[in-house]
Amino acid sequence: MAEEIVKRRRGGGRAGNAARRGQSGAIEQMPWRLPVNTDRPTEPLNADGVQRIHEGSMRILEEIGIEFYNAEAREILKQAGCIVDGDNIRFGRDFIMEMISKAPSSWTLTPRNAARQITLGDNHILFGNVSSPPNYWDMALGRKVTGTREMCANLLKLSQYFNCIHFVGGYPVEPQDIHASIRHLDVLYDKLTLTDKVAHTYSLGAERVEDAMEMVRLSGGWSEEEFEASPKLYTNINSTSPLKHDEPMMDGWMRMARRNQGLVVTPFTLAGAMAPVTMSGAVAQSLAEGLCAVALAQYIRPGASCAIGTFTSNVDMKSGAPAFGTPEYMRATQMTGQMARFYGLPMRASGVCAANVPDGQAMWETSNSLWSAVQSGANMVYHAAGWLEGGLIASPEKFVMDCEVIQMIQRYMEPEICATGEDEIAIDAIKDVGSEGHFFGIQHTQDRYATAFYQPIASDWRNYEAWEAAGSVWTPERAHQIYRDILADFEAPAMDDAARGALMEFVARRKEEGGAPTDF
Amino acid sequence: MAEEIVKRRRGGGRAGNAARRGQSGAIEQMPWRLPVNTDRPTEPLNADGVQRIHEGSMRILEEIGIEFYNAEAREILKQAGCIVDGDNIRFGRDFIMEMISKAPSSWTLTPRNAARQITLGDNHILFGNVSSPPNYWDMALGRKVTGTREMCANLLKLSQYFNCIHFVGGYPVEPQDIHASIRHLDVLYDKLTLTDKVAHTYSLGAERVEDAMEMVRLSGGWSEEEFEASPKLYTNINSTSPLKHDEPMMDGWMRMARRNQGLVVTPFTLAGAMAPVTMSGAVAQSLAEGLCAVALAQYIRPGASCAIGTFTSNVDMKSGAPAFGTPEYMRATQMTGQMARFYGLPMRASGVCAANVPDGQAMWETSNSLWSAVQSGANMVYHAAGWLEGGLIASPEKFVMDCEVIQMIQRYMEPEICATGEDEIAIDAIKDVGSEGHFFGIQHTQDRYATAFYQPIASDWRNYEAWEAAGSVWTPERAHQIYRDILADFEAPAMDDAARGALMEFVARRKEEGGAPTDF
Repeated sequence: MAEEIVKRRRGGGRAGNAARRGQSGAIEQMPWRLPVNTDRPTEPLNADGVQRIHEGSMRILEEIGIEFYNAEAREILKQAGCIVDGDNIRFGRDFIMEMISKAPSSWTLTPRNAARQITLGDNHILFGNVSSPPNYWDMALGRKVTGTREMCANLLKLSQYFNCIHFVGGYPVEPQDIHASIRHLDVLYDKLTLTDKVAHTYSLGAERVEDAMEMVRLSGGWSEEEFEASPKLYTNINSTSPLKHDEPMMDGWMRMARRNQGLVVTPFTLAGAMAPVTMSGAVAQSLAEGLCAVALAQYIRPGASCAIGTFTSNVDMKSGAPAFGTPEYMRATQMTGQMARFYGLPMRASGVCAANVPDGQAMWETSNSLWSAVQSGANMVYHAAGWLEGGLIASPEKFVMDCEVIQMIQRYMEPEICATGEDEIAIDAIKDVGSEGHFFGIQHTQDRYATAFYQPIASDWRNYEAWEAAGSVWTPERAHQIYRDILADFEAPAMDDAARGALMEFVARRKEEGGAPTDF
Repeated sequence: MAEEIVKRRRGGGRAGNAARRGQSGAIEQMPWRLPVNTDRPTEPLNADGVQRIHEGSMRILEEIGIEFYNAEAREILKQAGCIVDGDNIRFGRDFIMEMISKAPSSWTLTPRNAARQITLGDNHILFGNVSSPPNYWDMALGRKVTGTREMCANLLKLSQYFNCIHFVGGYPVEPQDIHASIRHLDVLYDKLTLTDKVAHTYSLGAERVEDAMEMVRLSGGWSEEEFEASPKLYTNINSTSPLKHDEPMMDGWMRMARRNQGLVVTPFTLAGAMAPVTMSGAVAQSLAEGLCAVALAQYIRPGASCAIGTFTSNVDMKSGAPAFGTPEYMRATQMTGQMARFYGLPMRASGVCAANVPDGQAMWETSNSLWSAVQSGANMVYHAAGWLEGGLIASPEKFVMDCEVIQMIQRYMEPEICATGEDEIAIDAIKDVGSEGHFFGIQHTQDRYATAFYQPIASDWRNYEAWEAAGSVWTPERAHQIYRDILADFEAPAMDDAARGALMEFVARRKEEGGAPTDF
């Protein structure tokens, strides 16, 4: 024990499990896999409730309509027979349902490393890093600071390192030291070279989306035909609730649809602010905003790979501040899961919290949101690692802590935990041990102990005295050390020299051309 | 905002929600209620798996048997036709199943305040305080100390104060400044005067159990007949896994059965240590140990009020340390829930963690365990507030933090969150707001905002800047201030003078008599 404590102290206070296990990496983690959620979803709505929310959603589309601030989209939808009145578009439910029926219930995304291909749907539950906070917080800084390219790269490295992170969302922190006109070029270059997982593009104008598609295509060395044969990257658009789709997001949505890339639409319907104070109303509105975008994509390209996201939460009615991981958030996520199955579409949920620092509140809110993603049958969990302050802060400590929870969820999904074969019921072992012995040393245990149980990365399971002797290190400090160890050891994934060269060349050329417009 | 911050700073840094709401108590909390769990349980076993675990459990009872270190229990079970060989008793499955069929699927516990009556079963999920840690930790101490009567009383006050705590378990911390011979008298006196909720007795010898029953009887001013007409307190016994029931626990179990009091049996089957390394084997063993105690109680008093508990977790196979709130723990809890429904018995689960301090790890482990209690359909959740270090530490900060999670679970159970009436779908409100407005000020929101959403007690939902301006207070520090405010404001519940006098007299007399023996 004494030796172990010394080893751990040298290690700077982290949990020390890796050292105990003799693994060479910064930590021992679970292997890459695409977890399958075998739990029957939690369904707070009965069949009637599903019909009522559907009816509400259809009535919003038919009677109230959605504003589309994109002329091309309005033109297309007019051709499709929708009722266009200025920016407002009303949709018949027959059109919506016919279009939605063309959408696949599951689809793949293939990054440059084919081994990292993911499938959205088919009961998979997949996790992505935090995306889009303007700010960064870490224990060493001890304060909130503006995001930089280096911080962004650090979080990209964590996204690559953790096998439980399946796709890389938007900018894990907004690198505000890069001019907005070329930010997408630098971050996407970093993302495509520091990670080999599925990438994302913001739908922020034609140039950014086209640049992203081209860079992803170059990263994989794909021809145009190969690129378009199946989705290689995805975008996530947010409607501007209530009831609006803005110009650049719709532009990106349509561009991506035409080229057969992944499409996720996630209304941000905060109940009591941008949506009704009642959760079923907020869900109905969210669905209306999402379904019309899916219908548009299907009209442009039947069979386009679409998913609907939920970001329905509530505000603090005393202050108007958004709240996350609340009971209402959990139920809204579960209700949206029921509706996604009703419409036959893959679903996106999130790992979120309102907490400002990676403390107890952060983890109960995040646990609530992640478990509600499990309970809802969500296929894609955004912001699952690293999110603080309602998405305004990205934190590497929180990233590590969240990965512990995500790994536990992955382990929880493994059916062997609940195996009930003769070897697992283990009558012979129970008989052999009898009432006097214990199970530590017996063969039945020896044969299984190495893989029998989840092994933590940031949790410290030692007793108080051992924990105290090792420096009384609380969870965020342990997570801090783990993230520094990971960065210190980090090796970028292998990449074809030609592909890297093509990317560098593309970025250089586009920078010379001035990048993307920044006037919206 | 400035004024609010000043107010909050004066408040010492706690979340300040109560102040904002203008409530007089230390915090604003949800009212007392008995939550009903309407979620369909998560069931990792198919019908075959349930049968296999049942078969395993029956084979343990039939072929291996359980040691009963209590001569009276052996004699009774011999009369009942069980095969007694020294301390070992083997049970036929017909006997076990016949006895179990006599046990009610739900039963009540009535404390001195009838308004605090609880029902175990009928889809209720009820929560109790941490029980039995020898040690105490709080932020002001900053270290682990031996429990005292004062610390114990503090936690009893919290147990009374929080409406989300439905019953008061064992000693919330073991008061080691009271001699063991009279400890039960002092703590039960404190419990019965500081709280008016359902109380518990340890089964630690005839004298303690008889004293506890008498004190509870006196607290309610009940006649012997009234006391025995329905359960007024309960005991929880643990088998000594593997496969043993000890002398004093069995004694208490039988005494309580004869007098129609509540009976909970909870084997402590740590997979890989006191039970097979495979979770279904550990569950089968736990059930065998529990079911034979239930059968004994039913033989003594058909219809006795019994519940089976689960405490099946796993050890860290690298160190042998117990782990809690793990994926394996969650699945074992869910599997036990399926088996409890198979046997028609109410079920007890727990809120547990291995963490040493109330940090992120504490909350992800506790969240995992509490949500698995929900998912398993557990009726009684022990240790749900205040537990640290695998049950070796009680912490008032953790108590407050856990109550936040428990309150969220209670709110999550409220069916109105998912109501889908016309008013909730809110088409008219959506139409009125249209695409340009927001929902803050409208009548639909005004009519509902006060009760629409969960209001937190320890969570701080303000943005980083406001949180920083108020002193950058992390969750455990906020919880510390809340618990001190609660204790400062605490008023003991009303109590009949005669009942209090009778209790004082009883305690004085029993102390004069020397209390209970301490030689086991």
